[in-house]
Amino acid sequence: PGPRASPVPYRRPRFLRGSSSSPGAADASRRPDSRPVRSPARGRTLPWNAGYAEIINAEKSEFNEDQAACGKLCIRRCEFGAEEEWLTLCPEEFLTGHYWALFDGHGGPAAAILAANTLHSCLRRQLEAVVEGLVATQPPMHLNGRCICPSDPQFVEEKGIRAEDLVIGALESAFQECDEVIGRELEASGQMGGCTALVAVSLQGKLYMANAGDSRAILVRRDEIRPLSFEFTPETERQRIQQLAFVYPELLAGEFTRLEFPRRLKGDDLGQKVLFRDHHMSGWSYKRVEKSDLKYPLIHGQGRQARLLGTLAVSRGLGDHQLRVLDTNIQLKPFLLSVPQVTVLDVDQLELQEDDVVVMATDGLWDVLSNEQVAWLVRSFLPGNQEDPHRFSKLAQMLIHSTQGKEDSLTEEGQVSYDDVSVFVIPLHSQGQESSDH
Amino acid sequence: PGPRASPVPYRRPRFLRGSSSSPGAADASRRPDSRPVRSPARGRTLPWNAGYAEIINAEKSEFNEDQAACGKLCIRRCEFGAEEEWLTLCPEEFLTGHYWALFDGHGGPAAAILAANTLHSCLRRQLEAVVEGLVATQPPMHLNGRCICPSDPQFVEEKGIRAEDLVIGALESAFQECDEVIGRELEASGQMGGCTALVAVSLQGKLYMANAGDSRAILVRRDEIRPLSFEFTPETERQRIQQLAFVYPELLAGEFTRLEFPRRLKGDDLGQKVLFRDHHMSGWSYKRVEKSDLKYPLIHGQGRQARLLGTLAVSRGLGDHQLRVLDTNIQLKPFLLSVPQVTVLDVDQLELQEDDVVVMATDGLWDVLSNEQVAWLVRSFLPGNQEDPHRFSKLAQMLIHSTQGKEDSLTEEGQVSYDDVSVFVIPLHSQGQESSDH
Repeated sequence: PGPRASPVPYRRPRFLRGSSSSPGAADASRRPDSRPVRSPARGRTLPWNAGYAEIINAEKSEFNEDQAACGKLCIRRCEFGAEEEWLTLCPEEFLTGHYWALFDGHGGPAAAILAANTLHSCLRRQLEAVVEGLVATQPPMHLNGRCICPSDPQFVEEKGIRAEDLVIGALESAFQECDEVIGRELEASGQMGGCTALVAVSLQGKLYMANAGDSRAILVRRDEIRPLSFEFTPETERQRIQQLAFVYPELLAGEFTRLEFPRRLKGDDLGQKVLFRDHHMSGWSYKRVEKSDLKYPLIHGQGRQARLLGTLAVSRGLGDHQLRVLDTNIQLKPFLLSVPQVTVLDVDQLELQEDDVVVMATDGLWDVLSNEQVAWLVRSFLPGNQEDPHRFSKLAQMLIHSTQGKEDSLTEEGQVSYDDVSVFVIPLHSQGQESSDH
Repeated sequence: PGPRASPVPYRRPRFLRGSSSSPGAADASRRPDSRPVRSPARGRTLPWNAGYAEIINAEKSEFNEDQAACGKLCIRRCEFGAEEEWLTLCPEEFLTGHYWALFDGHGGPAAAILAANTLHSCLRRQLEAVVEGLVATQPPMHLNGRCICPSDPQFVEEKGIRAEDLVIGALESAFQECDEVIGRELEASGQMGGCTALVAVSLQGKLYMANAGDSRAILVRRDEIRPLSFEFTPETERQRIQQLAFVYPELLAGEFTRLEFPRRLKGDDLGQKVLFRDHHMSGWSYKRVEKSDLKYPLIHGQGRQARLLGTLAVSRGLGDHQLRVLDTNIQLKPFLLSVPQVTVLDVDQLELQEDDVVVMATDGLWDVLSNEQVAWLVRSFLPGNQEDPHRFSKLAQMLIHSTQGKEDSLTEEGQVSYDDVSVFVIPLHSQGQESSDH
């Protein structure tokens, strides 16, 4: 049977119990056993780690579909007019930030490993290309400081363009550049696969959270739980995906229907009026079933089981350039976006408490724990462990264990995650202090 | 000079002082001088107003670009299996609701008048087509009540499909159907123009707010101001519009650039790196200016001055089928959506106070008064006028006067609106009571 009759969930093998790896917590870089990620083969003359003294891969092995990276992000100043040469300043004059990234692979770990080794370099390059705008009170209209029209600053002001918009733009470009690198490297090495990406960057008193996929980050404070990311799945991006199939029907090769129905239709439904939605609809309506409505749906299944073209559980991420529907030539990549959604947390504006943290985790955690349950665990754990220098790592570990039935479980009916689970716990108090040092 | 050198704001003549018309308030139907809208020429055998005993056009003349309509919405039951015939039940068995609509025309009042005369009929037909689902606890998978697959109710349940999703779907379809009617009627009569549409429907204890354009509705309560609609302008829909130009570059006929810059570029900018955004970007980045970047931008101008293709200030609405960029053959319609965004207010779940109201108004009001200023005026006016049966009409009138310097003005620096202004004030208290009778 083709993919319509029996779709094979492609994304990742479930029931691989025991593959859950340890967390990389915010203080993971203090651990002596952390090993740096390999230098991406980019042929640069400077050593790869000139700007990344402490990027580590947070104890992931090459066999994990989940991969992680974190470290210091040192952004150099570019000499005006000589863009290909770098003016090496003393370290104090670097613009420094911090970087945390989670990659959840599918179809093998190759894309996730490449992303963990590459994305920070792409981001550094993108940030260095606009560093003049980052350090200015307001980004200049022209990058070289020339002012061609006297009212240029006013135009920039009226558009409300701030330095943080350049960081958002740099993150968006870095994800796309990294996706291209992954595409080339996978093709060259004959490998397959893709990954989600959730990236946090702390820079100039702000925390940027860039998400492409179904990982999640939340802010947990004493009296507040705030989502910092939104999941991108075939369900949450239904209208975008249906719209694309409407514009380019050839992408479905006559094998799928772009319409959504409550279930897959069958012969008995022919001629009946059934519930449906198309790309322009948020609500539901009824239509009379025609033969073409019996095809396999572009997006099918509910919740965690929802699949794009019967194949993929996420609608944004990196890689998957070669991915096709089983036994067909129908490509997934045209429906996938590599561009992340970026949210900005103004850390300097928060009245920070000692125990305010950001929790970043792959979907394995959120499958079994709600935001509220995670916040409850955070608030239960931290106040009693204020003297422990490794308490944030231990909290991350405890969160993972609680998805595996190791702790007195909070999860409904002792739910257990058989997925890879990765967690970062980022204490904001030190970020705020650190960033205010610069 | 063509449209690129000197774009003519198409939308509506400003400085037509004195054209502001009186408000249609929630109790306008009590006024004896209200005249019903004309029957749309749809060739139905039933009198047009069988279901709309009280639709009035809220004192608008045919010369106003703003048009309005409100009245009772009576939805009949459809006899199963005989879809083209109607089973006339006694009035008590009708499903009844209320309807308020504001249409802000541009390029003449023709589209707004057609919309005021037509949209409620489209909506009634759409609601009547799904009435079986509206009155059920949960919409059935099949409209005729047959259950082909025993687990059909479970599929509907899992998708979370509720009766309110059918009303949203009916509103979405009604706007599109009305847009088609307007296109046909304008072409047949050789007329031009388009209009925005903001429609409120009170049905089964819920208030639905459907918006296509830049009118706005807010809920004002003693301790709360809640936006019930979002504006659709070239600025708020930038990414959708740029994306379309990316997919169909021929829509720009080589005359426009889809990229956004802080200002229009000129010869001196060639070769410089300037701030820009493309369709996939929320943030900003820099690009080196090429010759094609000097073209007139697809979206240009700031705030109220922002224009699509140098021509139109809104990106959703009805009509504009023939609209072209001045002196060119470039069409606006492909970039416009007629589908509204619908929000739902669960009135039955609010603990209603006597003075809780919804304020709906065209952009003329919101150009000079903020949500907070409108709420302040509402809260200042209503408590002192509790005995006046016309207080909601008077409040609507007072809101309009305060945009015209007639009241002791709240607006910044005595700002005055020269635009048409239309306002509905809908008291929720009576809606809640009424709806709970059904």
